[in-house]
Amino acid sequence: MRTERLAYLGDRYTHTYAAALKFAAKTDELVGYHTIFQSINAALGGECDYAVAPIENSCGGSVTDTLDALRAYPLFIRKETVIHVPQHLIGVAGADKNSIRTIYSHPQALAQCDGYIRAEFPDVEVIAVSSTAEALSLARDPSKAAIARTPSEGQHIIENEVEDVKNNSTRFVLLGKEPADGGDKCSVVFETPNKPGALTEALSLFGEHGLNMTKIESRPHKSELGRYVFFVDFECAGQSPDALLRELASRATELKFLGKYSCI
Amino acid sequence: MRTERLAYLGDRYTHTYAAALKFAAKTDELVGYHTIFQSINAALGGECDYAVAPIENSCGGSVTDTLDALRAYPLFIRKETVIHVPQHLIGVAGADKNSIRTIYSHPQALAQCDGYIRAEFPDVEVIAVSSTAEALSLARDPSKAAIARTPSEGQHIIENEVEDVKNNSTRFVLLGKEPADGGDKCSVVFETPNKPGALTEALSLFGEHGLNMTKIESRPHKSELGRYVFFVDFECAGQSPDALLRELASRATELKFLGKYSCI
Repeated sequence: MRTERLAYLGDRYTHTYAAALKFAAKTDELVGYHTIFQSINAALGGECDYAVAPIENSCGGSVTDTLDALRAYPLFIRKETVIHVPQHLIGVAGADKNSIRTIYSHPQALAQCDGYIRAEFPDVEVIAVSSTAEALSLARDPSKAAIARTPSEGQHIIENEVEDVKNNSTRFVLLGKEPADGGDKCSVVFETPNKPGALTEALSLFGEHGLNMTKIESRPHKSELGRYVFFVDFECAGQSPDALLRELASRATELKFLGKYSCI
Repeated sequence: MRTERLAYLGDRYTHTYAAALKFAAKTDELVGYHTIFQSINAALGGECDYAVAPIENSCGGSVTDTLDALRAYPLFIRKETVIHVPQHLIGVAGADKNSIRTIYSHPQALAQCDGYIRAEFPDVEVIAVSSTAEALSLARDPSKAAIARTPSEGQHIIENEVEDVKNNSTRFVLLGKEPADGGDKCSVVFETPNKPGALTEALSLFGEHGLNMTKIESRPHKSELGRYVFFVDFECAGQSPDALLRELASRATELKFLGKYSCI
């Protein structure tokens, strides 16, 4: 079996690394990048075979960088996985809740702990950085803390699971340059013409074909306000999505099938 | 006419201030706050009568803080307005594109200029702060720049309109504690039961009532992954939404009508 290279965000202390371990075969190589964009670029440019990216969190919602990349680039969803993403408050020796003046984390992690930070640290400076790995690297004196998954060397957990909603979970996807064609779940992104009823008609197709939509998310078309593309996830156990996709394509001004894949 | 107090994000250099000027009567008082959350809190607590908040940008998409607040708190949309939000690169005397080592802005503004920053400043540190006003206050030596609407005192525009998609526009809403009942546009947020077809059925109601959905956005229910609430905007010129809302309520596990309001 060929060794494949999986690009991911951060280093071995990040949530994305934990997800990458689930996707990777034993012989695969995991390659950390500084941002989601850089890891996706590595898969696009051939430096890696796949990219592992967060796509949705139970509290923060969609990871829009990943959705936008799926529409913009020739990438497809190969697999998905859901992992528990506890967010801990982490600092170096001597750091405690009273010594902290600055908290660093990824914007999604900060959003997941927003209520906690407001209640416990109303006067602390909160700085969004590109990954939880970077946040850990900045928490190097007792006045600074990171919100992240795992303490790195010389650090400890100051407070456990500080996310506002417990059982904090994130869905990660494995992205590759070829569409997958197995599994029970499908994803598609499309735009409907800007005329009354067009969106309703397109969405009603899922019901007509007996396919259960599990998620719908709009993102800006990025041309003008009020123009959107729609990401729909639907279940397709034992059923081909082809007939639906043909009809949807005939009603859509833009359509990209993102794959039929399995959850591991 | 009573002087009313409108809470908004930042100071007189922000986009939200420009929107607040459109909503305010001449006699009204505009009160700046440090975060969207604080300005909304001021309207909730009675310190102000209304809050002005961004809800959607043509490039960055929904402002999730505002959507989540509309669901969580007894607030309604009173009016909406769309304004052009040019994003300029701004610094102090002596600052130019070669001197900049750090760029500050609000996360939405950074998202709108993402391609520009990547192309022109690949090695510069990018820091998200709570408002463009705060970004300007941090750009106080030539190594630092802000992305914002208007230079504050002692600052100048280094580069004009650096947003990735021109005609960058943001929709702002005026939020108050009473629902509005005028105008041609309605917004509602609801959750459907977690069973196959429930979402499709709920959405098909809009078509059955001849009401054109102009936007649909999902947000996490914040209990578990895979559970969502849906924000729908629809046109209701010369038509009451009451019949639709009654039917929708009978199919929804949670429903809040956010108002029938006008765009100014």
